[in-house]
Amino acid sequence: MIAKNAFYAQSGGVTAVINATACGLIQEARRLHLQHPDKIGKVYAGRDGIIGALTEDLIDTSLESDEDIARLRHTPGGAFGSCRYKLKGIEQHRAQYERLIEVFKAHDIGYFFYNGGNDSMDTAWKVSQIAETLGYPVVCVGIPKTVDNDLPETDCCPGFGSVAKYVATSIREAGFDVASMARTSTKIFVMEVMGRHAGWITAACGLASEAQGEPPHLLLFPEVPFDPEGFLAQVQSCVAQYGYCTIAVSEGLSDREGRLIAESGTRDAFGHAQLGGVGQVVAQLIKDRLGYKYHWALADYLQRSARHIASRTDVEQAYALGVVAVDLALRGKNAVMATIRRLSDEPYRWEIGEAPLSAVANVERKMPAEFISANGYHITEACRRYLQPLIEGEASPPFRNGLPDYVRLKNIAVPRKLETFTV
Amino acid sequence: MIAKNAFYAQSGGVTAVINATACGLIQEARRLHLQHPDKIGKVYAGRDGIIGALTEDLIDTSLESDEDIARLRHTPGGAFGSCRYKLKGIEQHRAQYERLIEVFKAHDIGYFFYNGGNDSMDTAWKVSQIAETLGYPVVCVGIPKTVDNDLPETDCCPGFGSVAKYVATSIREAGFDVASMARTSTKIFVMEVMGRHAGWITAACGLASEAQGEPPHLLLFPEVPFDPEGFLAQVQSCVAQYGYCTIAVSEGLSDREGRLIAESGTRDAFGHAQLGGVGQVVAQLIKDRLGYKYHWALADYLQRSARHIASRTDVEQAYALGVVAVDLALRGKNAVMATIRRLSDEPYRWEIGEAPLSAVANVERKMPAEFISANGYHITEACRRYLQPLIEGEASPPFRNGLPDYVRLKNIAVPRKLETFTV
Repeated sequence: MIAKNAFYAQSGGVTAVINATACGLIQEARRLHLQHPDKIGKVYAGRDGIIGALTEDLIDTSLESDEDIARLRHTPGGAFGSCRYKLKGIEQHRAQYERLIEVFKAHDIGYFFYNGGNDSMDTAWKVSQIAETLGYPVVCVGIPKTVDNDLPETDCCPGFGSVAKYVATSIREAGFDVASMARTSTKIFVMEVMGRHAGWITAACGLASEAQGEPPHLLLFPEVPFDPEGFLAQVQSCVAQYGYCTIAVSEGLSDREGRLIAESGTRDAFGHAQLGGVGQVVAQLIKDRLGYKYHWALADYLQRSARHIASRTDVEQAYALGVVAVDLALRGKNAVMATIRRLSDEPYRWEIGEAPLSAVANVERKMPAEFISANGYHITEACRRYLQPLIEGEASPPFRNGLPDYVRLKNIAVPRKLETFTV
Repeated sequence: MIAKNAFYAQSGGVTAVINATACGLIQEARRLHLQHPDKIGKVYAGRDGIIGALTEDLIDTSLESDEDIARLRHTPGGAFGSCRYKLKGIEQHRAQYERLIEVFKAHDIGYFFYNGGNDSMDTAWKVSQIAETLGYPVVCVGIPKTVDNDLPETDCCPGFGSVAKYVATSIREAGFDVASMARTSTKIFVMEVMGRHAGWITAACGLASEAQGEPPHLLLFPEVPFDPEGFLAQVQSCVAQYGYCTIAVSEGLSDREGRLIAESGTRDAFGHAQLGGVGQVVAQLIKDRLGYKYHWALADYLQRSARHIASRTDVEQAYALGVVAVDLALRGKNAVMATIRRLSDEPYRWEIGEAPLSAVANVERKMPAEFISANGYHITEACRRYLQPLIEGEASPPFRNGLPDYVRLKNIAVPRKLETFTV
């Protein structure tokens, strides 16, 4: 019996630790291949996610050195490329599924690993149905990844803990800056963070405030409709009390009608609404109404790629999920996602679990209402208890020439055997 | 003879390492005070810069523990508060100088240390003339600090090396992210950095690119008038070659007529030009003309407060300048600024020097033309040789609860002895 090869791909927005998952998965597959060469062969990575499978653009990870694979553990971004591409249902697009089977057959692929968020778990779930519906034996395992922390059935999502650590660190540091400047200059600092529908990242900023009056002073969640007058009153009171005010705002902040605040503000020279600038809209509102000088920052990709300040807990979980995904697949566990189960808050203990992909695909986990303080502008103790362990520990990458030393893989393609297929 | 006390204040925009200077200065003053109690007494810090001196709002640093003073070395921001306040000339505002002397006399202050950039060195220079002009014996020493790296007479300015390390790290990390996403999503990433008149920080981003094709691909300097068509051609060629394009842009980017590009773009709901958004203007230009999806980041205060990724070289220089400032003052060296002198590039060796404040005050050091590549969009090898040592070494702060553990001093005021004075 020829050992089945594995297909692994990264999907959706990448993170500081998705490559740690790839590292765990490839190292575990290599280890098992040495022990049981009949059970698992090579790991082929899809170039740019599922697109790599459809277009037969496979990367032969066996051509990468053990050293380079080990370096994935501390390298941000997606080493094999990612994609935002959602498979349609088998009924709607049978040709794509037949193509997948054709590629799997041509390259002896019996294991399919998909590493991503909500949309990606939907794709993984659809692929997991191939065996039953189309009769090709492939075991499909999903591996969670999303800075949005909004996958159900898992305590948290790899990628989130590191963003949480980055944003909390950043707003703490900026808080020290603006506190120094407030007497004669900047009194307001606004930092805009990711999280279109769920306020997990905004909440994480709140961890930086460990005592009364410490930045950040106000958090603007997508879950709480923006009330300009109430907010301005909070800002004014904060400046009166502390001399300055620091604010973290979610890109998804909306008004009572559900309209994004980012769209209500500035328009470009062509009259288009400007996205990605809710931080500035909020800051400018303060300036216009209260007259305070402001600074604002837009962390954007910096927050989700900041491997230099990754959470060690996050890195360890990301790695462990890659390892266990291989084990699940070899045990024939089709249509599951590997998960993190919390055993205790303090000391933080966790173990690996699993959940059916059908329960995960397209389900968005919201932040519990009891995580937001009564006035709507900060986090509760319950939220702090949940978040705190996720940012614990440092996992500094190696540095070279004063900068983090990240790996670029060779990413050599597996020779094609099939006709071209257009996605 | 009663030992003279010292006045120390922080001025202008603060940095990740200005407190390392304060740490060096206070530790050296404490050490000398123990050895020679007749030579130097206490260090009084001005609350909010020179304003603290004028308003007799002095902080008694002798009430802080040795442990807390030591923690200043790894704490960002300005521990005693800063200000943007420029003293007028003695002729124009004699009352302010007489007030300074009154405060100095009331608190036995014989040493005056001012820690800041161009404007602050002008203030320091004016104070240094008090002895001669108004007959009060005070020795005034300036200590350089500015992320803009634009003070003359010193190889570099404390604060700059850490910003340089932060921006180069950040754009490298974001580069890994956008490279992963480029196939089906974001192809353009723009990061806006500080530096209104000089492109030092923009240039530092270039350090992240160590080989052909590595991010950042294009740098937009304030020294190079923005040419939209030429720039768009560069972007298009970069995307064609590498699949994506990463750009660092200075907030001070201007057109041929010297108008800020930030002001040419968006207007807010009231029709005011929007500042602080040149990154978005440039990104939107690419989107409008070439159709590529973009992300952009505005590092703002995050870049100059990012003590968690400070350059060890920068921290060591900042600390050493604080130490030597005390020594200069005790040797009666009035009207000088302590400086960094470079002895060699590789291995990097430096020593402390000094320069007359008159040669420093209000003089802005531009980036040499030979530091910008011929096409205007990157840095030269000469620039790399100059910048590289400044980001070398890590100096990670201690962490507690997953976050950098910074100190907040007690900042207890020295009891007032004089009438109120309004600035």
